[in-house]
Amino acid sequence: MTNRPSEFDLIATYFAPLSASEPGAFQLSDDAAIVTPPPGQSLVVTTDALVEGVHFLSSDAPEDIAAKLLRVSLSDLASMGARPASYSLAIAVPAGITSEWFKAFSQNLAEDQQEFAITLIGGDTVSTTGPLTLSLNAMGFVETGNGLRRNGAQIGDDIWVSGTIGDGALGLLVAKAELTDLKSSQSDYLLSRYRRPEPRLKLGLELLDRAHAAIDISDGLIADLGHICETSTVGAEINIADLPLSDAAAAALSREPDLIDLVLGGGDDYELLFTAPSSFEPDVPSLKKRTETSLTKIGSITDTPSIRIFDQNGGEYSPVKKGFTHF
Amino acid sequence: MTNRPSEFDLIATYFAPLSASEPGAFQLSDDAAIVTPPPGQSLVVTTDALVEGVHFLSSDAPEDIAAKLLRVSLSDLASMGARPASYSLAIAVPAGITSEWFKAFSQNLAEDQQEFAITLIGGDTVSTTGPLTLSLNAMGFVETGNGLRRNGAQIGDDIWVSGTIGDGALGLLVAKAELTDLKSSQSDYLLSRYRRPEPRLKLGLELLDRAHAAIDISDGLIADLGHICETSTVGAEINIADLPLSDAAAAALSREPDLIDLVLGGGDDYELLFTAPSSFEPDVPSLKKRTETSLTKIGSITDTPSIRIFDQNGGEYSPVKKGFTHF
Repeated sequence: MTNRPSEFDLIATYFAPLSASEPGAFQLSDDAAIVTPPPGQSLVVTTDALVEGVHFLSSDAPEDIAAKLLRVSLSDLASMGARPASYSLAIAVPAGITSEWFKAFSQNLAEDQQEFAITLIGGDTVSTTGPLTLSLNAMGFVETGNGLRRNGAQIGDDIWVSGTIGDGALGLLVAKAELTDLKSSQSDYLLSRYRRPEPRLKLGLELLDRAHAAIDISDGLIADLGHICETSTVGAEINIADLPLSDAAAAALSREPDLIDLVLGGGDDYELLFTAPSSFEPDVPSLKKRTETSLTKIGSITDTPSIRIFDQNGGEYSPVKKGFTHF
Repeated sequence: MTNRPSEFDLIATYFAPLSASEPGAFQLSDDAAIVTPPPGQSLVVTTDALVEGVHFLSSDAPEDIAAKLLRVSLSDLASMGARPASYSLAIAVPAGITSEWFKAFSQNLAEDQQEFAITLIGGDTVSTTGPLTLSLNAMGFVETGNGLRRNGAQIGDDIWVSGTIGDGALGLLVAKAELTDLKSSQSDYLLSRYRRPEPRLKLGLELLDRAHAAIDISDGLIADLGHICETSTVGAEINIADLPLSDAAAAALSREPDLIDLVLGGGDDYELLFTAPSSFEPDVPSLKKRTETSLTKIGSITDTPSIRIFDQNGGEYSPVKKGFTHF
């Protein structure tokens, strides 16, 4: 079968099996699903949309599109300290999409569902004359009254990030063949960071009682730090020398130093950026082990309403190109 | 301002105000919203997507698109007996959409939010090179363990519908100028039924302890009755003479009797179709008054695994055109 199946066939063949572990999904056969949070828990709800040609390339594999779509939303749940529970998926499908595409797409969803403990509970599959358009609504649980927010940063907090910064934006350059002079292992690494972000769910749970404010880096390090500062009415200082870089990103930067702007502003990192009091630091070694995530202190929260970036020599850094705003 | 505003401006100007009544939406300024169901209640979750040129016409007014989008999902909540609570909205926006468009669109959402007691809590606004594409994820509350389902129909149940049938499909013909020989008041009525379905939320709540099975008619009367029969493993008989028709639909049918196929199979009615034991019938007069909705008995549930349709003379009716399946 290479032609596009009907909506009913799509649901029965590819999507209903993804709902099997949630009885309240009714095998996607009713008008809606019914979800019951555990006692004392609230729902954390987030929506992300991806459009072919805007958020992913037409040549991207269905597996990678599925991974990006689900993981971007999982990263939002991580940034709130939520445990993943269920998701709904709306797909607007152009004529060229085949059964094989849906098979690969749904198979990757199945694998990620297993890895991140989340289940499909509903959605809608419709036709479009335009590009493939996907919208995912993910839900997680958090203890009622708890939940990490952006707006709790306090003056004097340290600023921390998980993992490494800049890989996603550099990976997009690799995908567009605009960053070509790396070793193939380095290119592959950056590509995979761009295509398959790693939602920091374990870390998010651990930060619930430890961090004052948290966000996942999707717009870019400086822009997302700006979101924390704006909602918390504080400022921030960060040091470029402290930014955690992957070997691949460091190699790219050593050849083309201007790429630092992309590291600071490019986005698509899906690492957690959070602020915590100094009492957090002693916990870091054990936390790294438990969450299998590196953690790096990159600056501190200040009382001046701006973000100041310091370069390796301690001078104040101004971005060479546009791409982010000092809010 | 006639140019398209940035995503941040769109959210701040048009969407954040729609979230004002739900503190857990954080004015759309965090990574996710937090929703807490009342004690003992579960969430009912439904997703619908609409694409320009497929589900609505490019010439349709933003107010009508907003109304259809939200009301189609509200109709799903009604069919489960849920009280509306909140919704998330993903929009893929082509270049031609202006601030004026968003103003009219969001204003209609505000009016419908007021009327149906539902609040925006999140979403995503992205660019597209294709047609305007909207996806809405609506959530409602229902007592845990309760909730109307499709699969409870019992042999001997009466089959009921709310309102009138066929107006939506005939309204689409009017919109496409394929049904032109009606009085303008009749055309306007059908158009408005197509563009602004009336979710039967009050009725859904009243049916919670009364109906055995319920669905909202979106695919078409016969197709949706098929969904009830299939999930309940029963059959059905209905009588064409009993179908409730609006004056406008009756006028269209008297001129073009073949349109009966569209009434039976055309869909877009967003009325409730439900089955109930004969003990339900005495309640109907007071129920009609309380819900301000007409209710009509159109047939009964049988033990033969098929849907039989009887015409005015008691003969078995076979559809003239395609457009629906005897499942």
